Parts: sequence; structure tokens; C-alpha cells
Amino acid sequence: MEKLDFFRTDLLDESEEMVRHRTASEKNRLKEEDGISFGESRLGRVVVTSVVVDAEGEKRIGKKKGSYITLTVPALTPGDTEGIDDLARVLIDKLEEMVAAIPTVKDGKILFIGLGNRDVTPDAVGPLTVDRLQSIVPEYYEEDGGEVFVYAPGVTIQTGLETADFVQALTDKIKPDLLIVIDALAARSSSRLCRTIQLTDTGIHPGSGVGNNRKEVSKEALGVPVIAIGIPTVVDGPVLIADAIDSMFGYIASKISEKDSPSSRLSVTPWLHSENKDADRSTLLPIFGDWASWPHEDRVQLFEEVLANHELRTFISPKEIDSWVSIYADTLSDSLSSWVANLKK
Amino acid sequence: MEKLDFFRTDLLDESEEMVRHRTASEKNRLKEEDGISFGESRLGRVVVTSVVVDAEGEKRIGKKKGSYITLTVPALTPGDTEGIDDLARVLIDKLEEMVAAIPTVKDGKILFIGLGNRDVTPDAVGPLTVDRLQSIVPEYYEEDGGEVFVYAPGVTIQTGLETADFVQALTDKIKPDLLIVIDALAARSSSRLCRTIQLTDTGIHPGSGVGNNRKEVSKEALGVPVIAIGIPTVVDGPVLIADAIDSMFGYIASKISEKDSPSSRLSVTPWLHSENKDADRSTLLPIFGDWASWPHEDRVQLFEEVLANHELRTFISPKEIDSWVSIYADTLSDSLSSWVANLKK
Amino acid sequence: MEKLDFFRTDLLDESEEMVRHRTASEKNRLKEEDGISFGESRLGRVVVTSVVVDAEGEKRIGKKKGSYITLTVPALTPGDTEGIDDLARVLIDKLEEMVAAIPTVKDGKILFIGLGNRDVTPDAVGPLTVDRLQSIVPEYYEEDGGEVFVYAPGVTIQTGLETADFVQALTDKIKPDLLIVIDALAARSSSRLCRTIQLTDTGIHPGSGVGNNRKEVSKEALGVPVIAIGIPTVVDGPVLIADAIDSMFGYIASKISEKDSPSSRLSVTPWLHSENKDADRSTLLPIFGDWASWPHEDRVQLFEEVLANHELRTFISPKEIDSWVSIYADTLSDSLSSWVANLKK
Amino acid sequence: MEKLDFFRTDLLDESEEMVRHRTASEKNRLKEEDGISFGESRLGRVVVTSVVVDAEGEKRIGKKKGSYITLTVPALTPGDTEGIDDLARVLIDKLEEMVAAIPTVKDGKILFIGLGNRDVTPDAVGPLTVDRLQSIVPEYYEEDGGEVFVYAPGVTIQTGLETADFVQALTDKIKPDLLIVIDALAARSSSRLCRTIQLTDTGIHPGSGVGNNRKEVSKEALGVPVIAIGIPTVVDGPVLIADAIDSMFGYIASKISEKDSPSSRLSVTPWLHSENKDADRSTLLPIFGDWASWPHEDRVQLFEEVLANHELRTFISPKEIDSWVSIYADTLSDSLSSWVANLKK
Repeated sequence: MEKLDFFRTDLLDESEEMVRHRTASEKNRLKEEDGISFGESRLGRVVVTSVVVDAEGEKRIGKKKGSYITLTVPALTPGDTEGIDDLARVLIDKLEEMVAAIPTVKDGKILFIGLGNRDVTPDAVGPLTVDRLQSIVPEYYEEDGGEVFVYAPGVTIQTGLETADFVQALTDKIKPDLLIVIDALAARSSSRLCRTIQLTDTGIHPGSGVGNNRKEVSKEALGVPVIAIGIPTVVDGPVLIADAIDSMFGYIASKISEKDSPSSRLSVTPWLHSENKDADRSTLLPIFGDWASWPHEDRVQLFEEVLANHELRTFISPKEIDSWVSIYADTLSDSLSSWVANLKK
Repeated sequence: MEKLDFFRTDLLDESEEMVRHRTASEKNRLKEEDGISFGESRLGRVVVTSVVVDAEGEKRIGKKKGSYITLTVPALTPGDTEGIDDLARVLIDKLEEMVAAIPTVKDGKILFIGLGNRDVTPDAVGPLTVDRLQSIVPEYYEEDGGEVFVYAPGVTIQTGLETADFVQALTDKIKPDLLIVIDALAARSSSRLCRTIQLTDTGIHPGSGVGNNRKEVSKEALGVPVIAIGIPTVVDGPVLIADAIDSMFGYIASKISEKDSPSSRLSVTPWLHSENKDADRSTLLPIFGDWASWPHEDRVQLFEEVLANHELRTFISPKEIDSWVSIYADTLSDSLSSWVANLKK
Repeated sequence: MEKLDFFRTDLLDESEEMVRHRTASEKNRLKEEDGISFGESRLGRVVVTSVVVDAEGEKRIGKKKGSYITLTVPALTPGDTEGIDDLARVLIDKLEEMVAAIPTVKDGKILFIGLGNRDVTPDAVGPLTVDRLQSIVPEYYEEDGGEVFVYAPGVTIQTGLETADFVQALTDKIKPDLLIVIDALAARSSSRLCRTIQLTDTGIHPGSGVGNNRKEVSKEALGVPVIAIGIPTVVDGPVLIADAIDSMFGYIASKISEKDSPSSRLSVTPWLHSENKDADRSTLLPIFGDWASWPHEDRVQLFEEVLANHELRTFISPKEIDSWVSIYADTLSDSLSSWVANLKK
Repeated sequence: MEKLDFFRTDLLDESEEMVRHRTASEKNRLKEEDGISFGESRLGRVVVTSVVVDAEGEKRIGKKKGSYITLTVPALTPGDTEGIDDLARVLIDKLEEMVAAIPTVKDGKILFIGLGNRDVTPDAVGPLTVDRLQSIVPEYYEEDGGEVFVYAPGVTIQTGLETADFVQALTDKIKPDLLIVIDALAARSSSRLCRTIQLTDTGIHPGSGVGNNRKEVSKEALGVPVIAIGIPTVVDGPVLIADAIDSMFGYIASKISEKDSPSSRLSVTPWLHSENKDADRSTLLPIFGDWASWPHEDRVQLFEEVLANHELRTFISPKEIDSWVSIYADTLSDSLSSWVANLKK
């Protein structure tokens, strides 16, 4: 048996292309030249990143054309119910905007699919969300055909069938007007973990490469509109390590630059996260050598090479993952229930 | 929303037809005249009832043509692991006989479906069995298509889709050589509860009536062979009550007849289950009136009428139902795993 | 290993004494003569039965002195959230009245114990309620000693220790000002099942007999006030059967008396529950014999004798028991959380 | 509410003292001079480390006197059932040696306590193990007092009571001849995670410091012998990061030294874990600076400082933690069941 991929997607706005064009001017240039438009705004505490890729852009960066919306509440914690509610509210607003383009949904059928393995905590956010959505099914059920359908198909190693094939079988049978997929994602940055929701109308395309749409869960593959809601619940080991090293470099560089500034003599909270992103990193060379000046991504790749087949070459979740997964399942199922009730009233 | 039927099938050998022809001579006559053959044997502690219905019989008794095999260990208890193992062993023998008629299964695909609602204990035996069967899936998985598939689709009020439609969607996609369905049944006799396994190649046909095969899970409806394994885990309230009254009549009649026999004077265990099935029931008339001479089924129907819309008009499970369901899920998944391993080696 | 008792208590107002003095005048007489006072009232949909037994009454009826309050919403169903909320509201009112007598509780310690076996659905209401109460523990926790403690000790066959000994060990350690015990009960009437909450300040005394307080969970045994909240989730098989027979007798007697009344000729709903409690039961004799005139309890005892060691000699729960248990666990934990918050604010 | 410590203990043979005396000669010297004896052996695939601390040693290194036995199968994976069985077998051998010193256990009482929070996957190994041990309780139960008791008390934020107080309450009541505690640990090395079992007769002493035995679960605090079985299921974020950096340094140093050796020209597997622990690390200085020559522990401490209050300052579990926890719960409960059966036969 071939090794099966555990997690399936990525946050688009963390893709290499996006990361390499992080300054505003560059991003604007991207837009005009490359078929990619990029927007960033803030709604309350929620940072909203919106990327629209057109056919031109798809060719350039190898990400499917469509909208990618990323909602983040920085420094969110599991106990911060207000922050989580904000996140959910913006999610529903953005979902409504996307669905406005598909008028048949109001009186039509919606199929919710929760992807992932319910026995692996960080992968369970999809299945647990749809478990809780089951309670609304009877309201929209009619003897001659309902309007809301929910399934958590499990993963291939549990069922024997590829997830995309399962979804296709059900889609062919139900012929929904909209398919909403909820899934756990892998983040490329540890600060995003469990603090972000990604919403996209491009579906889920595991193998990544555009063109190979055989195993996609997408409008192209299935013939029905697909909206994917993703929660990054794991981060790659090498990424986490490179992030930590970056934090450390920033911290040490700040401390070195502070030492020379008059204010440092008065400082009473040297341990506080006083990280100064603009501190001169050249001061790090004597201690940390040349690699302190490498780009972040190069250190990630170094660790990916070193840790291949190593126990640290693993996906890592925060310690509170059990709480996070249950919070997101509750919040998403509540929000989606209200959204359906509102849409169909 | 229309009321959904909770439990879906019945034990065939409890059907009215069978019950009314219980004596051997009558059953033999049934066979020749009516297109129904009936056999009863004993393998160790397991009582095996086998009913074969042909096209002629199907017309007569309204049960689909095919084989119905019922395995019972009388007085089985949850702690009697030996009895349960016997039951499972005979089940696999009979399953092998049925599958011998479908040679493509050996190198072909088997789809296991566990029907029922995992949140309702007596209905959970199907879902829990296939949960435990998931562990064998990777062994039979190949990148280009596996040989074993397992699903527990839930029930319509959870998912929005009729179970039969779900099974059809998956069958169309997977094109299995054999579909095995595991399900909880309702018994018509409280002594059968959790002590019986029914095996049939006729599938599951909820609405009962032959002809209306729209919502069947059967070879006719799906185009692939279907074998159904059913465990009676509930009994209808009126049936349970009528059974108890019958036990009481038998017990009292026995005591009355004993009173007049010389041995009764020596009896030291009057409380023991000395029920004498042939005791003269006419002695009951003064105490219990005319209805003591009614056929059992008439008392069942009386209670069905009286208790309609009453809290006692309910399905009733034994107190140890949590244990029973877990025992059957363990035993069936173990037995089916071994059977698959043996078949495919 | 001796057989362990599964369920531990009974509803007091179903005890033989109470049942035999059901008419108002008799109950009033009971009060004055026997050390028992009895009250019945209605708060909205909730029928409140209150029995107070004093030392005199304890000697007479063998039930511990103290208050027994029984709250029932007749014909409650799992979907009737309004009825369940009414029940919970009255429960909290009555609890507040009881606790008003123990002023140290406000600033003192409360220990909640959920009794029962979480692996047996009808017995799980206690453990599941305290599981959900765990969420309030941190609010009342202080490094040097908290004010709210919750435990679900399991049952003796799981842990090896008698429940009463467990509770005593914890009580000796924590020294709570109040112990609240939540438990599943057995009802003596199928119409009470899952529709009733019993509240008592006499604790739980499994072996029943007053005097043998060795294994009691009571103020006498533990030295701290004990309030027990009980939910009847099972009914004895013989009771259920006798109840059904009674319903049937009432139904048939009503039909016979209707047949002779002019109104019956106009009746269009003969199947409706037109049961007339005062219909003349002597009309039943030809059909059902002498036993139709027996008192209800005698028929219960007949079935208890007949069904001893029989599979029907079992505790029986309603089909919706999984829903009921989850509803009561949710409702009780919510109500008790609010009560604690209110008490301690 | 004060922050509660999540995980409670450490592997002794990873303590600073042990780490700083890793060479054989140093360890031998430790023994004679310091009241610590150290042994390392191999039983099949299991590496057995045994540390005995006496009163003298306790004063020196601040770890309680007693035996600490650490069993490790290097590179163990969840699918390696043989390796896990080896680990369990050696565990039972070592447990038998420890218990041989307490002859009253054979006919006496054993209390098993599973510590930890069952709702947090890596902390659930204790509770899940004792859940599975419940099945042996009835065998050793007698009306007048059993011989096996099992409890999973939960954690203080769930129950309100300190775990040590709970254990003391039960110990005072049951008066066991032996208390066996099963718990999750934090490892100081990522290679140990889920591959190690620690067995000690010194109990569990959360606050660490010897002397403050108020909240210990130990013979001194409770008056009964205590054996603790610990499984490291989490590693501290800074440790994991420092481990990864160490691996990287070793890997790069090996590659640099290879480059200059004739064999490297023939090398066909440069990616293989050819890490050469003795490779000259001074070659790393130009790239990685001075810190590459720091001791490992200093880098750990650097990250602990930098990541304080950071999301990476967290306990980290391997991705397969759900599988690991279930494997250890199964294996430990099976092994302990057999051990009890053998001891008491």
C-alpha cells in the first residue's frame, strides 16, 4: 500500500509566490501583470486576506483560479470566545458573498462533507463539524427529497475508497446545487495554527498540480460549485523549527540593538516580547554564523532535508489541539446552521 | 418530515406463514405445494433454520425468493463466549456456502455496509461492526483500486439521504462483486432477542412488499449480489407483553396439572421453570377467561391496537443491550476479517 | 462474586404505602395518624408531589424520615424542550428551598457525585451530568481549596470499591457542606419513566431497610447533608407488563360501555384513547376471567413470580433512552451550574 | 485560579545529573562517590537503564532515593507490535522484581490509579489503561472486600480536588498493600517520545523538590508502597527544536567530513542517515557560528528563554499520538492483567 497523504491542502496566502511578494507595492504589481489580485483588510480583530487568481495567474503560480479568502485572529487562544465568534461572523459574511453568485442554492440542495480521519485529533475537525450539523437535517428533509445532506466519509485507509471518488458518487446521486467541504489543513507558519480559517471556491485538489483534476474535489471535477472551508490544525516539523529559529534571531538581534540604546538602561521588562523586526541582523553573524542571513524558506528546506525519515519530520499540533478541534467543530456547525436557516427562510 | 422507520426488517422464520406451519408435516407440505422449502438442524448448540423461497413461494407469502438462514443459540447470555463463538463459526460456514456461488468474489471487491444509527444503542450493531472492520482495509488496498470497502452511512434523519440511495451511489462507483450488509433487526419473539443471527441472500427490503424494489438493498435493485447479516436487538412492546402472558399461562397451567399429579406432593422446587407445554390450558378459563384460549398472535394484535400511541408501543431491548451490541460488533468483525483473509489468501 | 444490585432506589410516592392511600381523605388521615404528610400541587405543567415522613412515619412505613419531592410532567416527550425546562425550573426552586436550611453552603463546599455505570445507557445519567458539570469547577477553584467538587465514581464491578465507601472516603477528605448525588432510579409505573425527577434530603440507601445504614449515602452515614436527585430511567419488566394489561382492561371496558351508550353510534374516533377509567370492569369477566378484578399489584406479583429467571424479568427502558439520558444530563448540568452561580454570587 | 501543571514528571535518566555523567567511567565514579548506582543493559531490543539513588544520592541530585528503571526500544513505531510486546514483557519482569520485596501483595489489595486528563490525548494514557483494567475487577471482588481496585480520578481542573488528595482519600479507605500509578510523562529528548516506559518505586512527586512531600503520591506521603509506571508522550517545544538543530549540525558535519574522504566519491546514498557522531564540528563554525559549539542544554535553555509565552513554548506530541496512546493503554492493561492473574493464582 502506497503511503497516503495525511493532510491535503495548504493556505494559499502562504504559498511561495505570496510570501515572495509580501510588500504592498510588489503585490499590486503582481495583480496587474500576473493575473493575481491581492487585498488585505481588517474587520474588527479579524485580518482578512483575499487573493483572486484568474486564468493567467493560474498558469503563472500553479494555483487554481478562483477566490482564496483567509481570515485570521492573531494571537487567538482557545479561551477567547469573543475572538472565535468574530472569526465565525466574518466567515459567514464572506460565505454569503460567495454563495450570492449561485442563486439556485436558496431553494436547492446543499451537501456538506467533513473530510478527514475522526480518529486522529487534528484531522477530526471536518467529521466533528458535520456530526453536529446532523441536527439540522430533519428540518430540511422531505419524503420526496431533502435540501440539506451531511456526510463524513472518513479517509481511504479506513474505507478503501478515495475520498474524491466518494464525493463524486454522492454528488452524482444527490445532484446538489452547492457542495461545502470542511477540512483540516497544514499551515506553513506556526503563528497561523488554529487561528485561521481559509475559504475558497476552488475546491480541494490534493495532488496540488493544476491540470491533474482526476482526484480533485472541485467544480471542474464534479460539475457542481464547491466551497472549501479549511482550518490549519497542523504545521510541518521543519517549519515549526525554522519559525522558532527566526523568533530566536529576532529576539537576540533586538537585545543586541537594545543594549546599545539609551532606553535599555531603563528597561524593566527585558523578557517581554520586545522583538524588534527591524533590528540589524548582521550583529548575529559572530554567534550564529552565515545562515542567520539566509532567507527563512532556505532554513525550512534545510530542515526538511535533514529531518527526512526522522521522527521530527512530522506534523505538529499545539498542545491544546483537543480543545481547538472541539471549539472549531462547535463554532462552524453553529454558524453554518444559522447560515442555512437564514438562507432558506 | 414524515416519520421514519427505525428498524427495517424481520426474521423470516418468524413470519406469520412460518409460524402457522410449525409442525414438521405441515412444513413438508408447504415445500411441495407452495414453493417453500424448510429445514431445521442443530450444529453443536446452534439451531439452524433454513428457508428457501422460490418464485412460486414469493407470490404466496410475499417474501422475496432466496435463502433465509437463521442461527440461534437458545438461552445465550452475554457472558457465554463459547456460545457466541459457536454462533459466529456457523455463521461463517453458512456465509462461505452462499459465497461459493459467486466465484468472482475471491479476486474481486467486497463492500461492507453497516446500517443503522450509531447513536441509538440497539441500532448501532451495524455501524460498530464496520468501524472495527476498518482495520483490515489497508491490507487489501492498492493505489489502483482496493478489494475491501467499508461504510456506515448512518440513517436518513442524520444525513438527509435515504440509505438505499447511499448504497446505490457507492455500488455504482465501486462496482463490488459482493455487497454485505450488517443490520439490527426487530424480533417477533422475546426469546430470540440477541441470541440469533439471520443470514439471507435476498437483501434488505424495508417497505416489505415485494415488487416495490425502489428502496431495496438487493441484487434486483443494485445489480450486485447482496448478503444481509441481521441481529435482532429489539422486540415490539406488544409482542413482549403477549410473550409474557403466554409464559404465565403455561406456568399456571403446569401448576394446576401438577397439583393433581402424585409427584407434586413431593415437589420441592415449585418455583423452578417446570413449565409443561402440554398442560391442559382449559383449566385456565375460570381465572383468565376466554382469551387464554386465543392464539398467541391474536393477543399480540390486541395489544398492538390498545397500545397504539402509548408509551408501551415501543421497541424494547434487553437491559444488557450495551454489552450485546459490543459483543456482536466484536464477534462479527473478527469473524468477517478471518473470512476475508481466508477467502483472499 | 455476589450479584450486585444494578439500580438502587425507588420513587417514594410509588411505594406500597402511598399507593394504598391514594385518595385525598386517606392521605390526610395518614398525615395526622402516621407521621406522614402528603401534598400534591401543580406548577404550570409540573405535578409536584411532596411527602414528609417524620420519626413516627419512618417506623410505620420503613422509609427514612425527611422530604421526598417528586416532579412529573405527564406525557413528556424527548422533543418537548419546554416541558423539560419547566421540570428543571421547578427542580431548582425546590432545591433552593431545601438548601435554604443549610446556610453554610453559600460560602462552603459542594460535592456533586454522579452515581451509576456510564457504560450502561439508562444508568449513565449521573456520570454524564457530572461530566458536564466539570466545566464550572475552575471558577470555584482556589489554590488553597475549592468550593465545587465533582466525581463520577463508577460502580463496584468497575472499580472494586463499594460506592458508599468511595463517597465516604471523599467526604472525609473534602468535608463538604453539602453533598448532591445524581442517580438513575427504577420506576414502579411505566408512565413515570423519564418524565419524573425525585428530590430528597434523605440520601440514597440501597439495601432499603432503615437501620442498616452501613452502606447508605446519607447524612446519618456521612455526617454531611445529602440531597439526592433521581431520574427513573428503567421500569421492571413485570410492572411494564401489568401496566399494559391494565391499559388493555380499561380500553376494553370503555369500549363495551360505549357500545351501549347512545353517543357511541355517533363516534367517529373509536381508536382514540377514549379510555374511561370509571367504566364498569365487571363486563370484562367473560373474556378475561377473574383476574381482571384483581388489584394491579397482585398482577405485578404474579408476573414477578412467573418471570423470575426469565429474560423478561429485566429492567426495561424506553426506546428513546439514549436521547433521554443526554437530555437529562444537559438539563441537569445547566440547571445546577446556574444554581451554583446564583448561590455563590 | 492558578495555572495548573499539565504534566507531572520527568524521566530520571534524562535529568541534568545523568546527562552530565554519560560516559561509563563517570557513571561508575558517580556510584561510589555520590550514592547513585547506574546500570545499562540490553534485553533483546529493549535498552534497560537502571538508576538506584540512596539517601546520600538524594541529597546530591535532588531526586528521591529508590530505583528508577527506564526501558526503551529505539526507533519503535506504532506498527511494530513485536517491539511493543518486548517492551511490555521486560516491564512485567522488572515489576515482578520490584514487587518481590512486598510479599503481602500476593494475598493483599492492589490499587491501580490512572493519572491524567482523558480529554487531552497525550495525557489520556493513564485513564485509558485503567478503563481497560476494569474488566478484571469482578474476578477479584468479594462481598467482604476485593483485592483489585482501579480508578482514574481525572485532574484538578475537572474535579476540584488535588490528585494527591484524591489518592490519599482512597488509600486511607482501601488500605492497599500496593499502589500502582500509571501516568503520562514529559520527555527531555524527542527520540524517547512514546518509545520508553519508566518504572520507579519512588512514586510521583509533582513539585519535584524532595522534602516537600505534601502533594506527593509516594510511600512517604501515603504510608503504602507506590510503584509508578510512566510513558513519555510529550516533549517540550524548546527541547524538540534543540534536538532538531543538533541533528542538523551532526548531519552537516558528517557531510563536510565525507566530502573530503575518498569514499564519498562513491557514495550513492547521500540522503541516508549517515550522521557521523564523531565528525568534526569545528567545520560548522563558518556557517553556523559559535553556538554550534555550545553544549546541547545551552541551546535548549536559549529557546526556553526566547519562547516563553510564545506558542512554540508548548508540549509537543508526535502526529501518531492517538495511535500511541491507544497502543500503550491496550498493552499496559493486558500486561498488568496477566501479571495480576499470575501473582494471585
